[in-house]
Amino acid sequence: MNAGELAREEIRKKMWQGPTPGLAPGYTQANVVILPKQYAFDFFLFCQRNPKSCPILDVCEGGQYRPLLTAPTGDVRRDIPKYRIYKAGILQEEVGDIVDLWSEDLVTFLLGCSFTFEKALMEAGISIRHIDEEKNVPMFITNIESKPAGVFSGPMVVSMRPIPAELVDQAIEITGRYPKVHGAPVHVGNPEEIGIVDISHPDFGDAVTIKPGEVPVFWACGVTPQAAVMRTKPEIAITHSPGHMFITDIKDEELTGL
Amino acid sequence: MNAGELAREEIRKKMWQGPTPGLAPGYTQANVVILPKQYAFDFFLFCQRNPKSCPILDVCEGGQYRPLLTAPTGDVRRDIPKYRIYKAGILQEEVGDIVDLWSEDLVTFLLGCSFTFEKALMEAGISIRHIDEEKNVPMFITNIESKPAGVFSGPMVVSMRPIPAELVDQAIEITGRYPKVHGAPVHVGNPEEIGIVDISHPDFGDAVTIKPGEVPVFWACGVTPQAAVMRTKPEIAITHSPGHMFITDIKDEELTGL
Repeated sequence: MNAGELAREEIRKKMWQGPTPGLAPGYTQANVVILPKQYAFDFFLFCQRNPKSCPILDVCEGGQYRPLLTAPTGDVRRDIPKYRIYKAGILQEEVGDIVDLWSEDLVTFLLGCSFTFEKALMEAGISIRHIDEEKNVPMFITNIESKPAGVFSGPMVVSMRPIPAELVDQAIEITGRYPKVHGAPVHVGNPEEIGIVDISHPDFGDAVTIKPGEVPVFWACGVTPQAAVMRTKPEIAITHSPGHMFITDIKDEELTGL
Repeated sequence: MNAGELAREEIRKKMWQGPTPGLAPGYTQANVVILPKQYAFDFFLFCQRNPKSCPILDVCEGGQYRPLLTAPTGDVRRDIPKYRIYKAGILQEEVGDIVDLWSEDLVTFLLGCSFTFEKALMEAGISIRHIDEEKNVPMFITNIESKPAGVFSGPMVVSMRPIPAELVDQAIEITGRYPKVHGAPVHVGNPEEIGIVDISHPDFGDAVTIKPGEVPVFWACGVTPQAAVMRTKPEIAITHSPGHMFITDIKDEELTGL
């Protein structure tokens, strides 16, 4: 049993109900979006057309709860510590499993998450400010429109990490190796150019310190597909709760160059 | 207007009705599969799970005939010189356009095709036997099962090219740069290992000469998704006719490392 499977088992048994960063180090964690079948093709296409913000790791067809490619022994109904249930785009509640809500009509998407590239940056000696300051990453709605697909559309949401100017090239190079977890930044340097008016007031998450000599660097963010789903107001949508991810059997290093 | 657009326009005006290799050199040509909506999610998933044989370049939602990502001015109803119409998995006829058959219910998939990597091999001085012998590439059904998805399943079909032993490493390296057009070989050397009993009797296409000192090299082939579709026997399926591809606006070199 690998460390990813062990962590999922602990979560499944409700022995771990907190955030997942730090669990099963080196195993890729995934964003999760679960939707009724009628939205599945359009959402699949939205992800395919917007691979930087919506990098698909795995998709389970209707009613299937085992992710064949990334966690064949997993159970997306129980292996996430905290789920969010949305009805018509409105958050209804957070729950510890979705066994009672499960049906043959639900299609599950696992999407790459920035934890993978943050770990790679830190291993190269580039510290991550929101982790140092024990905050959530600052996220901003941009003026970059995602490519629409069927009923889904909306702006790209980005996450921001301040990087010392002399390390920016290295940060670009390192994250560019991980196209399945957002890849290289979508913008470096000038927030206004992508429609961000006030860098100290993120739309989601927390503001972090930008020190003299640091440059704000923006990566496509997994909140993009979630925001697109909420705009469409499906009768039900289920996601992981922020920071409470699905842990796969895939090792982070397997994602380079995929 | 780029050379890809020009070639499509000629085809659309029925000024060109033959095979497409040689048209718009450097522009990526695509395999095409058109299916009713009810099969679209499962087929999308089949491709996503089997990226070596079914590399997705673009998908048009129901009724859309302009490929947004790869040929926004294109028209998949008219820009292919010859289409094949299948009903319940049986080839019914070949036609020069599908305007009369078109409906809001039809979903179009463009998939990468080996022409791109063959060109890269030839530019590196590695000749392609079936081109030299003016034949169709030999293709074989293997014992490698594709990962099933919904109603779609079936064996991987591979194409074979004999390569001089001393050039095999280079051929692997070159084609590995093109993951969106089948990528590196799936097998080198021993046909029996992948279930091919008689290399001189391909299941599709033509046999080609294997000279002393040459090794048979096998790449995942775009016939794999077509064969999976035919097994499922949808009431209608439309594909390009072999060798009569859809020409995109994408340059071959843009596909490296994608």
